[in-house]
Amino acid sequence: MTKTFSKSRALFERASAVIPGGIYGHASPAVTVPGAFPYFAQSAEGCRYTDVDGNQYIDFMCGYGPIFLGYKHPEVDAAAAEAQATGDCFNHPTEYSVRLAEKLVETIDGADWAVFGKNGSDMTSWAIRVAREHTGRKRVAKVTHAYHGIDPWCVPGYGGVILEDRSQIDNFYWNDLESLEKLIARSASSLAAIIITPFHHPAFDDSVLPTEAFVKAINQACEAHGIILILDDVRGGFRLHPHGSHCRYGWQPDLMCYSKALANGYPISSCAGAKALKIAASKTFLTGSFWNAAAPMAAALKTLEIAERDKVADQIEIQGKRLIDGMLKIGEQHGTPLQVSGPPAMPYVRVANDPSFRKQQALCSEAIQNGLYLHPHHNWFLSAAHTADVIDESLGRFSQCLGTFCQNHSKTAATT
Amino acid sequence: MTKTFSKSRALFERASAVIPGGIYGHASPAVTVPGAFPYFAQSAEGCRYTDVDGNQYIDFMCGYGPIFLGYKHPEVDAAAAEAQATGDCFNHPTEYSVRLAEKLVETIDGADWAVFGKNGSDMTSWAIRVAREHTGRKRVAKVTHAYHGIDPWCVPGYGGVILEDRSQIDNFYWNDLESLEKLIARSASSLAAIIITPFHHPAFDDSVLPTEAFVKAINQACEAHGIILILDDVRGGFRLHPHGSHCRYGWQPDLMCYSKALANGYPISSCAGAKALKIAASKTFLTGSFWNAAAPMAAALKTLEIAERDKVADQIEIQGKRLIDGMLKIGEQHGTPLQVSGPPAMPYVRVANDPSFRKQQALCSEAIQNGLYLHPHHNWFLSAAHTADVIDESLGRFSQCLGTFCQNHSKTAATT
Repeated sequence: MTKTFSKSRALFERASAVIPGGIYGHASPAVTVPGAFPYFAQSAEGCRYTDVDGNQYIDFMCGYGPIFLGYKHPEVDAAAAEAQATGDCFNHPTEYSVRLAEKLVETIDGADWAVFGKNGSDMTSWAIRVAREHTGRKRVAKVTHAYHGIDPWCVPGYGGVILEDRSQIDNFYWNDLESLEKLIARSASSLAAIIITPFHHPAFDDSVLPTEAFVKAINQACEAHGIILILDDVRGGFRLHPHGSHCRYGWQPDLMCYSKALANGYPISSCAGAKALKIAASKTFLTGSFWNAAAPMAAALKTLEIAERDKVADQIEIQGKRLIDGMLKIGEQHGTPLQVSGPPAMPYVRVANDPSFRKQQALCSEAIQNGLYLHPHHNWFLSAAHTADVIDESLGRFSQCLGTFCQNHSKTAATT
Repeated sequence: MTKTFSKSRALFERASAVIPGGIYGHASPAVTVPGAFPYFAQSAEGCRYTDVDGNQYIDFMCGYGPIFLGYKHPEVDAAAAEAQATGDCFNHPTEYSVRLAEKLVETIDGADWAVFGKNGSDMTSWAIRVAREHTGRKRVAKVTHAYHGIDPWCVPGYGGVILEDRSQIDNFYWNDLESLEKLIARSASSLAAIIITPFHHPAFDDSVLPTEAFVKAINQACEAHGIILILDDVRGGFRLHPHGSHCRYGWQPDLMCYSKALANGYPISSCAGAKALKIAASKTFLTGSFWNAAAPMAAALKTLEIAERDKVADQIEIQGKRLIDGMLKIGEQHGTPLQVSGPPAMPYVRVANDPSFRKQQALCSEAIQNGLYLHPHHNWFLSAAHTADVIDESLGRFSQCLGTFCQNHSKTAATT
């Protein structure tokens, strides 16, 4: 029952001939464990994912976040198809755009208005312009190693980035009050905005929740110095709290950015904001060829309706806890301590005391072989399709693969 | 049979409460003639468009370009639905991404590779980073008033834009050899790229085709000084030439950006490039939550197949000529000279000698009443659904509305 990836590999060779790097961005083979993970998708349903070689997995990545209710959710797909049936991309927006803005204003705590784009980056970069327009200031502060998208002011990696792209960007450290105080002392009166994720989720590192003191200090600094607080809730939005992740941790943002989970995989992003920013927002030009498209908005309306109806954030939290509690216990049983971080709906579990990530990579490769898609270096995502039964099935598989991992590891340890 | 817009207006009031400006970007009422044009879409099919008040139009905007084969094209919609049926947004790309990159390399003259995004801006801004990465230079030159998207280096309007966003951007004038020579004399060795549209299509102005001398001078300057030539073919791509608009005018680009027409309204953009840029491209990070989605890629493959099979660019050119020749003749018959500019597939027709655009706005408002959607200030778009019969029907309506326009205008002239 060994899983092989011959079709993935053959396709990757074809891809490499006509696509720089073959696969780029978050799906690049280099991001997981090259050779031990699949490269191309075939299909998915609920929480189960099938690669091009026909290998099946219980999936804990959810398309890196968008799949919030489960792949191929029948109600969401039907809502999108209904909109698509009369046309999707027109000269004008449709009523869906008004209904969706109304729904977001009703749903998101502190939101008085909303706009829509396609990418998370569309919204984080626009929010910064709105903050600059509103304050008449230039500088923007972000947390070191925080991910806010692919625009040059913040893109990870330096390909094609020039110094001028970041000359007005300040960095400070997550949960580090001293670093924040220094920033404020140095730049408070020239800061247009602080942009922050609800919790810190760097790749190749543990996630870190915010301390109460950190949240309070940032809220107060923004209030005291007229700095706009932008919550980049692109990754966490709707999974962590039904009214926006700031409600969970106590952030008091002026602008909130959403995308991934909003429409269960259909392409849309949104920035919602407070009334005080509405004039600046109306002066800050934004547009895109497909931004008024009806189908993703219909999908978003249905997704938000289901999230509310089925208390999805609560359900995912419960199952996430079941997963991490179970994994921790299995780790203890096998004498392999695991390090758990992040909120239960977006957990990151890794082998403890493993600075090189080699053990983690071996464990996740073993998980792949056992039909569990666990990412070695990036936070995971649960969806509403991850029921208690699925979690228990996953834990059974995890126990098996941790057993194999321990056997292999003790062999390696014995021979070295 | 007067067309009214009461539902559009009511919806716009609702929108204004929850969306800054109510409708933003290219669909904003301010872009056409507020009060005389619809604001919200209901449905569309082929070349016919219905607004929320049930008013029907023969549409010459095609969703501002994306609708290349006609709204709700059955073959394209079936291809997208087939992909959607197994899932769309996954942890990985699908085989569609490889097939689409292969198809673009085969289709676009000079393309050795391709990448995909969602917005035109995703690709124009990334292309600039690739050029900077490849050349190790900073500066980028663009044509004054050229539209290349909404990122701060080029966005029209200054909301939230800071000087640093444009400190490395040079401007020169379309078809102006002297202005180009000055740019080259001043900046040649620090220029990473020149970015250019295949023809010049500013809003609130006539379109202008490139002179042979201008194309030659830019090609030569790029060649001589190692400057990367980026063709922003987002608006024109596939309508003007089956192998890329550069084939029509003689541009010799290193990087070519596409979006609108590529998938007949499904959200996708692409940058294709020459082999020499492939390494720099692979170093220039790009990613997006929905960028690997299968359905828009399936739609693009089908759109390109149909474009080739049915020689769509040729057909649209023929019908565009029929339209503008007919309009010019009708203008003469009514003693109202018209000014035609741009290529026939993307023409812009306006009342001549009308610097304030008042006559043009009156004429286009009359066209709306006659069931013809003609934009007063922006180039138009034809699709494969604009058959000879449709053009003749449109000309009949245009003749009627020009008659009414002349009556009204002579009345106005008599009373003032």
